[in-house]
Amino acid sequence: MVIDGKKIAEEMLAEVAEEVKKLSKLPRLAAILVGDDGGSLKFLELKKKAAEKIGIDFRLYEFPADITTQKLRKEIVSIAKAGVNHGVLIELPLPAHINTQYILNAIPQEKDVDVLSERAQGTFFARLEAKLLGVGRSLILPPAVEAVKTIFKKYDINLKGKKCAIFGYGLLVGKPISHWLASQGATVSIINEFTPNPAELSRHADIIVAGTGQEGLIAEEMVKEEAVVIDFGKDVDFEPIAKKASLITPPIGGVGPIVIAAVLKNLLALCKIQEK
Amino acid sequence: MVIDGKKIAEEMLAEVAEEVKKLSKLPRLAAILVGDDGGSLKFLELKKKAAEKIGIDFRLYEFPADITTQKLRKEIVSIAKAGVNHGVLIELPLPAHINTQYILNAIPQEKDVDVLSERAQGTFFARLEAKLLGVGRSLILPPAVEAVKTIFKKYDINLKGKKCAIFGYGLLVGKPISHWLASQGATVSIINEFTPNPAELSRHADIIVAGTGQEGLIAEEMVKEEAVVIDFGKDVDFEPIAKKASLITPPIGGVGPIVIAAVLKNLLALCKIQEK
Repeated sequence: MVIDGKKIAEEMLAEVAEEVKKLSKLPRLAAILVGDDGGSLKFLELKKKAAEKIGIDFRLYEFPADITTQKLRKEIVSIAKAGVNHGVLIELPLPAHINTQYILNAIPQEKDVDVLSERAQGTFFARLEAKLLGVGRSLILPPAVEAVKTIFKKYDINLKGKKCAIFGYGLLVGKPISHWLASQGATVSIINEFTPNPAELSRHADIIVAGTGQEGLIAEEMVKEEAVVIDFGKDVDFEPIAKKASLITPPIGGVGPIVIAAVLKNLLALCKIQEK
Repeated sequence: MVIDGKKIAEEMLAEVAEEVKKLSKLPRLAAILVGDDGGSLKFLELKKKAAEKIGIDFRLYEFPADITTQKLRKEIVSIAKAGVNHGVLIELPLPAHINTQYILNAIPQEKDVDVLSERAQGTFFARLEAKLLGVGRSLILPPAVEAVKTIFKKYDINLKGKKCAIFGYGLLVGKPISHWLASQGATVSIINEFTPNPAELSRHADIIVAGTGQEGLIAEEMVKEEAVVIDFGKDVDFEPIAKKASLITPPIGGVGPIVIAAVLKNLLALCKIQEK
């Protein structure tokens, strides 16, 4: 079955919209764009559209591609300080001369909708969900993790004992999803560009998560019958694999809209914490 | 070849001892023991012995097994605040009624020799080593990671493209080592108690890291010829596997002493930061 990401996202957004109405203030998401990369602009347009649809104010802050790391850091600190901005996201990638992690660390944890600062990553890596509740602080998950969690919940997929093949170990997809799957009791194999024979691992996998951005990396013979295939990077040869997979995300209208909905769900959770 | 962990640890300690002499103050490691578990006491004795041998002051703080989380947290905050304590470690496991992560978070990052607070874990998970240097803050690695790194460096093992099977995903061994190996370009498979057929993954592995504490979990037929086997938990059936492995840590005098040396190496690095 092909997963209808748009529909799942709409369901998530409808739930968020209901909660947004109950807030005492209009929630605002501040988005930072450095340079004028077409792909980044397009993603931000989609985020803006989804936000405004459910009553969230979206404010875009643009900076030139040649801004220095120090100047950008200062700007973000001041954007994050503003009480009207309840969440801050930095559209990645940043230009190569910028120290990306240092910039991401300028977002305080209580406004970090993408869970990318060292602080937010620390909370995510240190605490499993169940334990968290005991501490009384609410956990938001990295948006890609929230997206796969939502899909697995919707289709009632139990992760314990499942063999997972993860293609790529990047900041946004591979790293957080690998950790989350392992913490849920899945058997996780992390595959990268140096892996001698990726098929050897992937063709036994019950679940494949791909996030490399390399088109056509995953060919039909690398996927077993009835596998679940979640494709963040258009890595998957969709047509033939869709015939084998029990569940698969399409390259358009797949995980993308769900990830955007997850960002807004995180914003809502952080707004609630800030209201307290 | 059987790895002589004692010898490697002595080499590490000799290097640390040289640097300790150059410090302006006597470095002190504060160790916290809750309850009177025999295993924990034994480990602390070994840490004390290694520390004192190289001119590091070791101070043991003991608390009763029935101490509350809140009381213990307060005590640790005050121990960590004391300028004479340059590093703080909490011997794990803590009694079941204690919220372990909350207690670990009481150690400030600049004194966290075990890299277990959320902050320290965040830095470790967010930054790869190379990038870190650019930020000007020195990175210490979780002691188990420093131990495997030391072994791989000594035996000139290049991790890119190596298939690794990690048994267990615990706080001290499996989780940080899986992340570090993946960030070094290794292909990492994380195996747990729900994995349907661990041998399927481990018998293809170039490197096996075991940290479950389940004696005899890894049998001879699960290991390929010439594999490198690093055993943190006495998980490995040593005698027969030693005959096949190209490199293996013994159950006694294996990784244990190297991990202790890594803790003291971390203390030295943190002392230097505090001197600045």
